[in-house]
Amino acid sequence: MTAGRIEPVDHGGDLDTARRRYPGAQLPWIDLSTGINPRPYPFTMPPMEAWTQLPQRSAELALRQAAADRYGAPGVEMVVSAPGSQALIQVLPRLIDPADVTVLAPTYAEHAIAWARCGHRVSERSAIDDVGAARVVVVVNPNNPTGAIVSTDALCELASALETRRGLLVVDEAFADFAPEASLVSRLPERCIVLRSLGKAYGLGGVRAGFAIAQPTLAEELRAEIGPWAVSGPALAIGRAALADVDWLSAAKARLTEDCQRLDAMLKAIGITLIGGTHLFRLVRHDDAAIIADRLGRNGIIVRRFAAQPTWLRFGLPGSEDAWKRLSSALKD
Amino acid sequence: MTAGRIEPVDHGGDLDTARRRYPGAQLPWIDLSTGINPRPYPFTMPPMEAWTQLPQRSAELALRQAAADRYGAPGVEMVVSAPGSQALIQVLPRLIDPADVTVLAPTYAEHAIAWARCGHRVSERSAIDDVGAARVVVVVNPNNPTGAIVSTDALCELASALETRRGLLVVDEAFADFAPEASLVSRLPERCIVLRSLGKAYGLGGVRAGFAIAQPTLAEELRAEIGPWAVSGPALAIGRAALADVDWLSAAKARLTEDCQRLDAMLKAIGITLIGGTHLFRLVRHDDAAIIADRLGRNGIIVRRFAAQPTWLRFGLPGSEDAWKRLSSALKD
Repeated sequence: MTAGRIEPVDHGGDLDTARRRYPGAQLPWIDLSTGINPRPYPFTMPPMEAWTQLPQRSAELALRQAAADRYGAPGVEMVVSAPGSQALIQVLPRLIDPADVTVLAPTYAEHAIAWARCGHRVSERSAIDDVGAARVVVVVNPNNPTGAIVSTDALCELASALETRRGLLVVDEAFADFAPEASLVSRLPERCIVLRSLGKAYGLGGVRAGFAIAQPTLAEELRAEIGPWAVSGPALAIGRAALADVDWLSAAKARLTEDCQRLDAMLKAIGITLIGGTHLFRLVRHDDAAIIADRLGRNGIIVRRFAAQPTWLRFGLPGSEDAWKRLSSALKD
Repeated sequence: MTAGRIEPVDHGGDLDTARRRYPGAQLPWIDLSTGINPRPYPFTMPPMEAWTQLPQRSAELALRQAAADRYGAPGVEMVVSAPGSQALIQVLPRLIDPADVTVLAPTYAEHAIAWARCGHRVSERSAIDDVGAARVVVVVNPNNPTGAIVSTDALCELASALETRRGLLVVDEAFADFAPEASLVSRLPERCIVLRSLGKAYGLGGVRAGFAIAQPTLAEELRAEIGPWAVSGPALAIGRAALADVDWLSAAKARLTEDCQRLDAMLKAIGITLIGGTHLFRLVRHDDAAIIADRLGRNGIIVRRFAAQPTWLRFGLPGSEDAWKRLSSALKD
């Protein structure tokens, strides 16, 4: 697998392409193509200093402490902050000499791309007990788009095996905010890096704030890769406030649980089969997936398709009653 | 030179350290330790979508186009956007196998750190015609902190020599906004990367937006290193507006020219010798530099000192009449 072969990558959130493809679509666009919470964390706009000053070390430390507290990491030295977890995905392949890398698939495409680009030999496997002799294993947990969860026991066992090879286990927990039992952070193995993101559960995809959590030595290596002043002043302030607000997170989970039930029922009613999901998206299968996506597109609603799985669609959750009504109407169209 | 030996690095803008060192200082702090314009670009707060949506490709392209127009690059494909030019400094050493790297010094410390960390052999030279057989040369132009400018003719000649070695010329133009004649962008050699920043002239150090400008192939390599969604939604919007506002830039230059004259006169009056500078900072020498810095610190004013040059001080420009008065008073203290 080479980066050249698998690019260009289709991602959610690409309104530009939708606008070109459906120039006459109903406006405003309803973007259900991502797993971004449609009700973002209601942050307070940071003071002007956040924009003008260089990001202060104390503010970065405060963000990392808030992340350690929120995710259950024992210490702030185990947290690396970055301008989005994608920035960390870009540098992870630098931590290890070219090696055999297994990505548990199908999943978020950027992991395989980043490792392949840095000269690693990337292959994909569908089961955690079938990763072979790879030195590096990448698991998105819960997985995007299937929602599948690998148990922390299984991950710890795998991490032990990789440790004997001086390998690395990468666990991308971008969708773990509402499934804390799936998180490996509180029992983090030695050669393991967990990624977290502010973009999904907090609905702040544009802010660019993400984290790696790892044992201190590994975390320090990653911090050196990322370099100083990586996270913007506004992101430091907003991220800190969002991560500390456990009441908001808990209310968001309750709301999204209801929303998922509503969406599942709506899709089931017209014969679409639910095959997976998280609190932030639902994965469905239908023989006419392409036709459904096209119909939604013409109605100004974009959902995520998958080139390799033409019968799959991933639905994010509508964020307003108007969006729910438009979706319901477009599905019956 | 190894990263271990030269760290920790002392940087401007470190208010945290000043607060610890001078707990009884007059407030608010006046930070003259950076080269950040004290009168930031008066941007409009971006709409909520900039925070919630993933940064859109069209918005990134618009920012890169604004940068191409502003800096005089022939095409948008020659521009790479990043969350601050520091993010680019982190990845430049990945473009080339371990090599001999010469940094024109004294200068901004992070260049040498980044190259050394990636296994390059870094040495420092003080003259552009003394870079030896290095495959990579890094020039900050105008230089920080000296303000020295290497002519574009000399840089082009050097780039030609480096090209025959498949080397690389890195020109950091973070302080070139008010010295456009110093910029190499409009006559960019083949194996050359120019860095620009929104943090300094636009006074937006916390926004994190910077650029690399290079011939298309090299730019594409850098874009792959940086990865997708690197620049935050708000930074895309603010950067685009700032770069397009040539009237603001021209007014800022006029104002800063006056401010520099005022600061130079104030320092000269008490026997401090000006030895260099740009529109955004002034470099001075005084045998009692340490005493002067300490006196200013006790008065809540921080300036930049240099461990290797104990008689040097770098002054940023005061941003308000109150700050000017406090500086004047503290200097006479």
